[in-house]
Amino acid sequence: MPERAIGVFDSGVGGLTVFKEITRLLPAEELIYLGDTARVPYGTKSPPTVVRYALEAASFLTERGVKMLVVACNTASSFALLDLKERFSLPVIGVIEPGARRAAALTRNKRVGVIGTEGTVKSGAYTRAIHALNPDIEIFSAPCPLFVPLAEEGWADHEVAHLAAREYLAPLLEQRIDTLVLGCTHYPLLKKTLRSVLGEGVQLVDSAEETARVVSASLGEHGHFRSGLPGAHRFFVTDVPTRFERVGGAFIGTPLGGVEQVELDKS
Amino acid sequence: MPERAIGVFDSGVGGLTVFKEITRLLPAEELIYLGDTARVPYGTKSPPTVVRYALEAASFLTERGVKMLVVACNTASSFALLDLKERFSLPVIGVIEPGARRAAALTRNKRVGVIGTEGTVKSGAYTRAIHALNPDIEIFSAPCPLFVPLAEEGWADHEVAHLAAREYLAPLLEQRIDTLVLGCTHYPLLKKTLRSVLGEGVQLVDSAEETARVVSASLGEHGHFRSGLPGAHRFFVTDVPTRFERVGGAFIGTPLGGVEQVELDKS
Repeated sequence: MPERAIGVFDSGVGGLTVFKEITRLLPAEELIYLGDTARVPYGTKSPPTVVRYALEAASFLTERGVKMLVVACNTASSFALLDLKERFSLPVIGVIEPGARRAAALTRNKRVGVIGTEGTVKSGAYTRAIHALNPDIEIFSAPCPLFVPLAEEGWADHEVAHLAAREYLAPLLEQRIDTLVLGCTHYPLLKKTLRSVLGEGVQLVDSAEETARVVSASLGEHGHFRSGLPGAHRFFVTDVPTRFERVGGAFIGTPLGGVEQVELDKS
Repeated sequence: MPERAIGVFDSGVGGLTVFKEITRLLPAEELIYLGDTARVPYGTKSPPTVVRYALEAASFLTERGVKMLVVACNTASSFALLDLKERFSLPVIGVIEPGARRAAALTRNKRVGVIGTEGTVKSGAYTRAIHALNPDIEIFSAPCPLFVPLAEEGWADHEVAHLAAREYLAPLLEQRIDTLVLGCTHYPLLKKTLRSVLGEGVQLVDSAEETARVVSASLGEHGHFRSGLPGAHRFFVTDVPTRFERVGGAFIGTPLGGVEQVELDKS
């Protein structure tokens, strides 16, 4: 079992921020990454549609014998985690719980902000996860639909991103949050802009980093750590790989090649 | 045949700008609109994927006996128009040719700008269509990926939209274009912002208006005008209708209800 790969999936390139943190923390692990680029984004789509897509993506990965499923997408984690855990008998790790745990531990004034896609924010998944840990924490959420296209456009540090961030974050700052959860795997790319808009008083929670830690802990718990040489990484997408390779390369900071195209909706 | 509906499809809500112009010009016509909201957007996806989606959407409409297909999406028109015309034996009207014809007629200095999605701009469809009419016209194109999310966010007149428009349009203004084609069905919502950034010297070509004129001409040519009372309109989407009704209502300026959900990829 330790030799098997970890399966990671997302609607597109965003989950590569999670992929990158896992490879940084666990360089010996083999990883299979699937980006559902023919149907990206999930963030504006409905729960039943996202659940269907997530189950198809997870089936693809389990058919390849992965030892663990990482749902590297906040929207899919919000809507589909229970369905995935019911359907598949292997550890399934989403990005909501790790971010929620970190936020609950970090906040001093018990006022936490959560930003994400329309789907993630509407689902209330972070509010539920944080309240399960500490019901006294107040949660203030804001959907930030422009952040994903801004990150993919390479405009994460652009004046347009600053202006959009000021607009989106103003209501959260008015609520005097001291912690902000980046509830979308694209958002770590905007960290610099977010920090400059938020100032010193607000701590950022990067779900990608937290999720990698939980992945590591779960592998340890099951005795599933792979040892030895750096593990191989394979990438699959559902649309032609050109755009994924270009945008994704910018996400992980190294060129992406050898990405393979597969179909999920014709099985 | 005149009694039959016109079938209109798009990846989502954008094509409603075309739908609106057709209903304005041809109030007696019945229309069936299909928005492929479970897979929106098409603009960042590859030609083969967009062709597959367009053929599925068109099959759905032809099975409902429409007398004409209107491809109310620039990306689908760019990639799939020939495949659609080959596959289906009814008039198929895209949005590229009407906009190209209008731009070629309007320009005085023979310098035309085209803005659209990454897919539409890369396809070179407008350049080919305009050059087929007049090879002396110089074309300057720019993809504007943020305009769709800005329009859907309701930020069409927001400072963020102004700033993004200045950034995207600067290279076209440097080229002294006197005509700009709005090569994406979402962009008519940004007209006010675009006009203020472009100034008086640049004329806008709205593909939605031009396409409605071509639809009317084609109906006349085939003797297919419906007469009498205002025609019924039906709306279908591939994801749950909530978001389409909300965002689409803002697009056409009246509330949208009774939208039905269908599946295209399971047939």
